[in-house]
Amino acid sequence: MPEQIFSYNQLYQFTKNIFSAIGCSEEHATTATKALLAADVRGIDSHGVARLSGYVRLWEAKRVNATPNIRIIHESPSTAVVDGDAGLGLVVAVYAMNIAIEKAKQCGTGWVSVQNSNHFGIAGYHAMMALQHDMIGMAMTNASALMAPTFSKERMLGTNPIAVAIPAGNEEPFIADFATTTAANGKLEILQRKHADAPVGWIQDEEGNATTDAHALKNKGALLPLGSDSEHGSHKGYALGSIVDIFSAVLSGANYGPWANPFPAYVPMPQNQPGKGLGHFLGAMCIDAFRPADEFKKDMDQWLHRFRNATPIDAAQKVLVPGDPERLFEKERMEHGIPIVDSVVEDLTKLGQKFNINL
Amino acid sequence: MPEQIFSYNQLYQFTKNIFSAIGCSEEHATTATKALLAADVRGIDSHGVARLSGYVRLWEAKRVNATPNIRIIHESPSTAVVDGDAGLGLVVAVYAMNIAIEKAKQCGTGWVSVQNSNHFGIAGYHAMMALQHDMIGMAMTNASALMAPTFSKERMLGTNPIAVAIPAGNEEPFIADFATTTAANGKLEILQRKHADAPVGWIQDEEGNATTDAHALKNKGALLPLGSDSEHGSHKGYALGSIVDIFSAVLSGANYGPWANPFPAYVPMPQNQPGKGLGHFLGAMCIDAFRPADEFKKDMDQWLHRFRNATPIDAAQKVLVPGDPERLFEKERMEHGIPIVDSVVEDLTKLGQKFNINL
Repeated sequence: MPEQIFSYNQLYQFTKNIFSAIGCSEEHATTATKALLAADVRGIDSHGVARLSGYVRLWEAKRVNATPNIRIIHESPSTAVVDGDAGLGLVVAVYAMNIAIEKAKQCGTGWVSVQNSNHFGIAGYHAMMALQHDMIGMAMTNASALMAPTFSKERMLGTNPIAVAIPAGNEEPFIADFATTTAANGKLEILQRKHADAPVGWIQDEEGNATTDAHALKNKGALLPLGSDSEHGSHKGYALGSIVDIFSAVLSGANYGPWANPFPAYVPMPQNQPGKGLGHFLGAMCIDAFRPADEFKKDMDQWLHRFRNATPIDAAQKVLVPGDPERLFEKERMEHGIPIVDSVVEDLTKLGQKFNINL
Repeated sequence: MPEQIFSYNQLYQFTKNIFSAIGCSEEHATTATKALLAADVRGIDSHGVARLSGYVRLWEAKRVNATPNIRIIHESPSTAVVDGDAGLGLVVAVYAMNIAIEKAKQCGTGWVSVQNSNHFGIAGYHAMMALQHDMIGMAMTNASALMAPTFSKERMLGTNPIAVAIPAGNEEPFIADFATTTAANGKLEILQRKHADAPVGWIQDEEGNATTDAHALKNKGALLPLGSDSEHGSHKGYALGSIVDIFSAVLSGANYGPWANPFPAYVPMPQNQPGKGLGHFLGAMCIDAFRPADEFKKDMDQWLHRFRNATPIDAAQKVLVPGDPERLFEKERMEHGIPIVDSVVEDLTKLGQKFNINL
């Protein structure tokens, strides 16, 4: 697909100007920009600037509050519930993760469930905030229902990602960040643009039959849970997506399951919503609360080294550790720029024109 | 397969007598028996009395200590590391979960990483201990390496299960308990006995090729991570198994990855083990530390009701919530008895003869 290359700084300035233009404070615009662009930098193109105009449309529809009063509404020594006041999830999740980290400093671990928020970008960004504190970071979020549980024709859960970041010593750290569906929506969109088929096991059609039609999701089909079908453990992917939903939304008082807020501003809100906004769940565990961090890191280095050097099936494809592919993207893109496909460039250009901001 | 029916009480007396015969205290024998039989009751036949003689062989090989001094070796307000002193995991994990629950009462959540332990039965049993305290329970354990990460020919991780138990009000609770491999080893053993093929996506052979040979695992093949292949997200199952391994064993100082202790006593211990025994990770989160438990349970009831009543693909197969199949087994087996296949009955009979204990 035709694309243009932008430097991180170009995208940073543009994105921050857009967030400022909708009324975000200097601090919030900075926070939101860094969180959003982490996706582009790490190669998760579906979750970065490609979504910027979507966030703005949510603000235009009054579903996003650019000047939220984010606050703790309940807490214990190791836990808190945060009300995001309908703010950008990109900002609310960072606020909540900082609370988790502070609580972990005080009593070993910190766990924050968030209500009344919106999409928070990539989960991995929030989990990685813990690394510099010698903590394990965790982040998850629910999202609008696109996935059908095992045996279900109905969409009941979102792609509900889980991220876990684990510090190391000399080796590059372990950073898992994955949707609990077999394939994320972004991968389907790529196939749709190419007019290509999807592999069996990614989606089902409106009747619940396996299909390779990459457009089936738009035609009332559904994404499948990790595992694809019951013979291959789809009930496990369904369980994982459910856990993310319950920790993020039932524990906080947000909207859960099929009642989760849709991302596209043109999609009507679900009827009879039981809670407030989307939910997230953020966690931090201080390594020192378990064993001395330097001992742990020595063992993590050995773990990472051993796995990166496991005997490969094909000598040309080394065994990877979670986070390795994204790290390669980060190195490449911070040095040589970030490719943005033409359709997204066009979308951003139009967005800029609306606010008199040049891309 | 030919089988015999036993009452829970018959199996309970027999199992407890065996644990007492190898030197367990009255309290430990009771704890171990309840934890072990929870598997048979819940229909997870591979993890119950079928393993009893395996535990005894580990004791005979001096790999299990029947009179362990289980103790906390490090702690913070919300965390602890427990040294299991090579005791039965069935006992050590219960001890550790009780600490997690006590810590959750004090500061909202409790997290215990365990070193120097052995196999702990089904993860779900330990997670479910939290339910009566209006807490969410979590349990995971590492295990000897049988699974090959994505792109790897080598076995690097165990079936590393994750269990999460979430309380509800009037509805039956949510209890997820699953291996992070596509199929658990127990399912392969059933196919082997039937001389049947395994589905593509469960195992690979010694060279890393997909195979349907149910015996491939015994011939230096490997189980595949949840997701089966990279096109269907096996890197996600590999990431989950890794997280279980690191939380259970690197955080505690147990043996991780390919160094984890083997369950069969005849398998030599791995060389150059970096830690002590197997590792577990137990967690408890007090609902009240997030929001009033009665409000949470009302929402969980709605969640559970909504998912159990999602539109099914086939009217004959309702949509299930994690824990539902095991609950049906429990009801049936506590009323009508527990079927044990003849080969296991024979194994138990021989085991009883060794200690002069009747089945």
